[in-house]
This record gives sequence, C-alpha cells and structure tokens, in this order.
Amino acid sequence: MNDARDIWKDVEAIRARSPLVHNITNYVVMNLTANALLALGASPVMAHAIDEVEDMAWIADALVLNIGTLSRPWIEAMEKAAAAAARKGIPIVLDPVGAGATGFRTETALRLIAQYPPSIVRGNASEIRALALSEKETKGVDSRHAADDALDAALALAGRTGGAVSVSGPVDIILDGQKLIRVSNGHPLMPRVTGLGCVASALTGAFAAVNRSPLEAAAHAMAVMGIAGEMAGAEARGPASFETLFLDALYNLDDKDIGRLLKLERA
Amino acid sequence: MNDARDIWKDVEAIRARSPLVHNITNYVVMNLTANALLALGASPVMAHAIDEVEDMAWIADALVLNIGTLSRPWIEAMEKAAAAAARKGIPIVLDPVGAGATGFRTETALRLIAQYPPSIVRGNASEIRALALSEKETKGVDSRHAADDALDAALALAGRTGGAVSVSGPVDIILDGQKLIRVSNGHPLMPRVTGLGCVASALTGAFAAVNRSPLEAAAHAMAVMGIAGEMAGAEARGPASFETLFLDALYNLDDKDIGRLLKLERA
Amino acid sequence: MNDARDIWKDVEAIRARSPLVHNITNYVVMNLTANALLALGASPVMAHAIDEVEDMAWIADALVLNIGTLSRPWIEAMEKAAAAAARKGIPIVLDPVGAGATGFRTETALRLIAQYPPSIVRGNASEIRALALSEKETKGVDSRHAADDALDAALALAGRTGGAVSVSGPVDIILDGQKLIRVSNGHPLMPRVTGLGCVASALTGAFAAVNRSPLEAAAHAMAVMGIAGEMAGAEARGPASFETLFLDALYNLDDKDIGRLLKLERA
Repeated sequence: MNDARDIWKDVEAIRARSPLVHNITNYVVMNLTANALLALGASPVMAHAIDEVEDMAWIADALVLNIGTLSRPWIEAMEKAAAAAARKGIPIVLDPVGAGATGFRTETALRLIAQYPPSIVRGNASEIRALALSEKETKGVDSRHAADDALDAALALAGRTGGAVSVSGPVDIILDGQKLIRVSNGHPLMPRVTGLGCVASALTGAFAAVNRSPLEAAAHAMAVMGIAGEMAGAEARGPASFETLFLDALYNLDDKDIGRLLKLERA
Repeated sequence: MNDARDIWKDVEAIRARSPLVHNITNYVVMNLTANALLALGASPVMAHAIDEVEDMAWIADALVLNIGTLSRPWIEAMEKAAAAAARKGIPIVLDPVGAGATGFRTETALRLIAQYPPSIVRGNASEIRALALSEKETKGVDSRHAADDALDAALALAGRTGGAVSVSGPVDIILDGQKLIRVSNGHPLMPRVTGLGCVASALTGAFAAVNRSPLEAAAHAMAVMGIAGEMAGAEARGPASFETLFLDALYNLDDKDIGRLLKLERA
Repeated sequence: MNDARDIWKDVEAIRARSPLVHNITNYVVMNLTANALLALGASPVMAHAIDEVEDMAWIADALVLNIGTLSRPWIEAMEKAAAAAARKGIPIVLDPVGAGATGFRTETALRLIAQYPPSIVRGNASEIRALALSEKETKGVDSRHAADDALDAALALAGRTGGAVSVSGPVDIILDGQKLIRVSNGHPLMPRVTGLGCVASALTGAFAAVNRSPLEAAAHAMAVMGIAGEMAGAEARGPASFETLFLDALYNLDDKDIGRLLKLERA
C-alpha cells in the first residue's frame, strides 16, 4: 500500500529531524500535547508570551494554534506568532476548540482564519460547521455531528483558506479544494480522554513540518492517531490506561503496524 | 441499601445525560479534572476568559469554581460566571483550595460565598475552618485536621450559604442545616495524588447537575470518589498507577461495586 | 557508601518533615511537578498571583522558580517571591527553561540571577551555556550539549551566584566554587517525557529544604531522579508507562535501591 509507505516515510522523517513544533495551546492539554509530540519524535515548545512568540515561531518548523482556553493576551500572542510564521513560510495549524459554543471563540477563530489562513484547520464536525455556517450549537467541546455531516462546511472552509481541513470523528474527513480522504482508524475510548483532539492538531503540525502537502500531512496525522488508538484500545481497561498505552504506541509505532491497521480511502 | 441504589441512579443519570460541567479551576488539575468528569460520563468544559464565561455558564448544567491558582482576572471571571449561574439557577460548587494559607485566598473565597452563595462548598478541614473561623493555619493545600474537627465550622458555613458543605478527610462529612452524612470510603494513597480534592469538587458538580438535593449530590460524589479509590488502591503500586486505576475505576464503576463497597452513615 | 547513606538520610528527612516547596512554574509541568513532590514525600504548593506570592514564600521551606511558560505578570510574581524567600533565608532554585531560545527568556533568567542569586541553578547544558556565555543556540528546551561541555559555563555561573549549579545530561554535573560531583544515573527515556527536567528542579528544592549544602542537595536530587529513572526504565514500554513507573519509584524508593544503583563520583 502506497499510503502506508508514505505515512511511514513521514514518521521516519519526524523521528530523524525532530521538527520543532511551536504550540500556543490550552492549559488543559499542554502536558499531554508535549508528551505526544515527544513520543512521536518531534520537539515541542509551548510559549505564549507576547514578548517571545515571534522569536519562537521564527525558530520553529510549524506553528499550532489552539483556542481551547482563550483570553485576550493569548489572542494577541497567536496573531503575532501567526504573522511570524507566515513571514517565515512555516505551516500553521488551527484547532478551533469549542467554536460555536461561545461567540468569543467563533469570532476569534474566524478572525485568525481571515488574517492568517492556516495550512490546516483541524476540528470536530460541530466546530467546523460553526466556522463555515456560523451555527451556534456546539455543546462544550464535544461533537454532535458525524464528520460527514460537516462535509459541505469543510469544503466551504477549505475554499476560504486555500488549505486543507481535517474533521475528526468516527470516520475522519480530510479535504482540500481538490481531494477528499477518509480515515476510519480509531477507538471508541478516544473521545473519553480529554485533549486527544488537541493532540491530533499538534501531531498534524509535526507532519506538516515534514510533508509539504497540507492534505497529506493532515491525513497522515489522523491515520497515526487512529492506529495508535487501536493499538492502545486492544489492551486498555479504561480511558486512563488508554492514554498511557496510546502514548507508548506512538513511541513504538512501526511500518508493520501502519501496514496492518491503516484504513484510509481516497474519494 | 437505598443509598447505594440512589447513588447508582445518579451515576446512570450522569452517563445518560452527560451534563455539561463548567469549571473555572486551577492550572495544576485542569487535565485530571476534565478526565475524571469524562470517565464518570459528564461533559467538562474549562473556560475562564471574561469575554465568554457568562455564555459558557449559560449553556452549562453546573458551575465549579476552584481557587487553586488564583489571580485577579480569574476572580473577575468567577464572579461573572457565578452571576450567570445564579440567574440560570444551576448549582454552583466552590472549592476554596488553600483558604487559610494566604489572606488573598481566604478573602476571595469569603467574598464569593457572600456574593453568590454556593449550593455546595467542598474543601478539606483546614480550608473549611479557615472560612468559618478565619484561622490562619493551613499548610499549603494539605489538611491538618480530621474532617470531624471541622464539624462546627461546616455547620456555621452551611448556615451562611443555606446549602451543603462537604468536608473531605479519612471520613468525609457532608451536611446542611438539617442533616449530616458520613462517608468513610477512600484509600490512603488519595492525598498523595495532586488534585484529587479538586476532582471531588468537579464530580460534585456533575452529581449536583442531576440531583436537586445539594446534600445528597455532595454525599454521592464523595462516595463514588472513595469507592473508585478503594478499587484503585487494591491494585496500585504507588500514587501514579493509583491515578490511572482510579480514573479507569470511575469509568467502569457499576451498581455492584457501589453495593459492595459503600460505607455511608446518616447521623 | 557514605553518599548513598547521606542521600537516604535526606529522603527520610523529606518524608518525615514534608517540607513545603513553593513553585512558580510553567503550565506544562505543574501537575507532574506537584505529583513528583508528593511522591517523594514533600508538600507542593503552586501559586503565582502577585497578591499572595510573598505570603506563600513566607510559609514555604524552599522556592522553585521555573521560566518555562513565562509572561510579564509571572516575572513580577517571581521577583516578589524571591525577595520574600531571600528575606526569610530559604533556598531558591532557578530552572532557566529555554534560556538561549529567546532573548526574553535569557534576559529574564539573567536578571533574576543578578537580583536574587539562587542557591542552585539547575538546567541542561544549552541553558547553562546560554546564561554564562550568552550564546543563542538553544533548540526549544532540548539540550544539544553533553553536560561536560557546559563545565566552564557552570563554573562561571557558580562564581556569579556563589551557589551551586546543576547541569543535567546523560552524566549530570553538579558543582560550586569548590567541588564537582558527577552523577551518571538515569535512563534514555527520560528526555522523552516532558517536564522531567522541571521535576529535577522541584525535587532539588525539596532536598535543599532539608540539606543546608546547595551542592549536596542538588547532587542528591539528581541521584534520586536518575535512580528512580533506572527503576522505571527496567519495566517501561514507552515514555508514558515510564512516567507512571517513575513516580511510583519515587514513592517506593528505599535505602537498598539507592545503595544498589547509585553512580556518583566526586572529582
């Protein structure tokens, strides 16, 4: 399978080059996100001070913005970092956590998208629909829509950014203006661990640092997430042991795991 | 046992309805708290920005305020969220972490209590005494008093709020103006895991979202904490494996576990 | 071995007295740091509000400053806490996370060192070199230098603070103006877990609270870190199970483990 081989190639590149992924992310998931990037082989840095985000983005290989626990100073830092990333030409990944739940989040995400179009927007169906259709129906940060329900919204959003949009769900949808990929790897315990969506965005940043195609990078990240999830789910006794097994699986993942488990379809 | 059956009924209601619990809590425990709520079956959201706390409280089923890592903007956010929660009529749970350790914490907790009387105040004996008696003797966030030493303080505090007060310790005391419940479930490793008190407050919020009696909700939460703790303690090799086992136990908990392990007395 | 006996004596003192370690640290590692201090037997408190850091430092037995996710208000809080710690005469440990990565971090660390000379500065080789030599070559928070490459830098820095400098790496170097200690305990998975460097600094604070010699306290902390790491590494399947096993090992550590595993050399 070519896809399995290409995913493995990206994983090897991440492990060999250890790209620096600059995260401006929410408090809840900082530790897990950093550990997931380290387990995969990337090099995480978390920095949000207005005084240093430009310097940090400037030495980074990808920038990941996550609006999960937003406040005014963080928005300003995200804008500064995004401007630096855009100047340097490194990929920007945006995770619009909770877009739709409050106007503050929806508007912040929309403004970031308009000012600094992200290479990849990664969210769940509720969030992507909120950004495309300005619906107000998100419940917390959970998804109430299967990813396919967000297909039109994702297409509209990709039209606006010119990049890729990655919608997570039981079946993940990753698309840009031309192509559509579905990844059906994953495990039912994944939504029971806080921050695995944020982890997906962070890993998407690592893949985007080594693969020039936003579409492929986003799809590879979702496939690796789902495969590590299946490896973890085979042994987990609940969500906490799942999280430990998931991170260990990211660390141990090899080409055979990918070849054996990958469920990726191109439409 | 009626109590076991009532607790199980609440757990089933949480798993069925997945109440949205809005937490304004401290940085140290955000991840653990969110994972504990998810493991139990509730839906957590963490949001502290002044721009959105009202909107978030408005869609929530309970509000949990925790002063563990306090600062001025967070206090303002807590006040706004509490005002919205009071207008909507959803339960407010206050965890006065470290009250008594610094004047800043004691005064903030006292002001919140006076302005927006919480349905339930949940703390350890030191903290509850500090609020009732204005003693300055807390050592960090540890308790130096057994829960029973805080009985008078808890009664005085309940008199002031008109709600329930939940004092954790080897034997938890939960009371309101009329009734007193003692829960003696738990495990000695629990104070060795940071944030399990904060988790107790968050779960108290989830129970309060499905049970109209603050007293019963608070007692059920402490019973479930203690029972999951005993299940974890039976296998743990130390505090970190305990934490993993505890969260998995919250997820797997069933009516038989509750029936078999519950140690709840009504005075 | 005298060193093993002295380390064990400090561990016993920490478990018996449970010193209160006041941390002003980064968001990524707060939870892990608190859990590591609890597992060792110390009492952690995390507090960063300008309104209370002086009060908190005043009741603490050691102050640990960590610049991992810095911002202006936190710097002001660090300065206030350090002033209170200096007045009270409790040890200050500084972890200059990411010094060298941005000018903001390097300058903040240098200013803190000049104003409130820490008993112990603990960092990796990149960070220590950045402080001593003002090189700008740190990559994120990873080290690109073996600890021995930072020997001159560490000596220069110790000359400036009058305290000890602890440089972590495959072989840790701990020195002051007179003596040099090398600790070669540890495990290759340690750099794959986010925040273990920050944990080393926090534990250094706990040891400094019970041992008057900054040099000995810093060396004992690194030895205990490395020994717990070796105990964890013997069973770990990846970085996440390593973290769990590491914390449990801190909790279970006894004199025999130290005697059997310690690799400490005095130069």
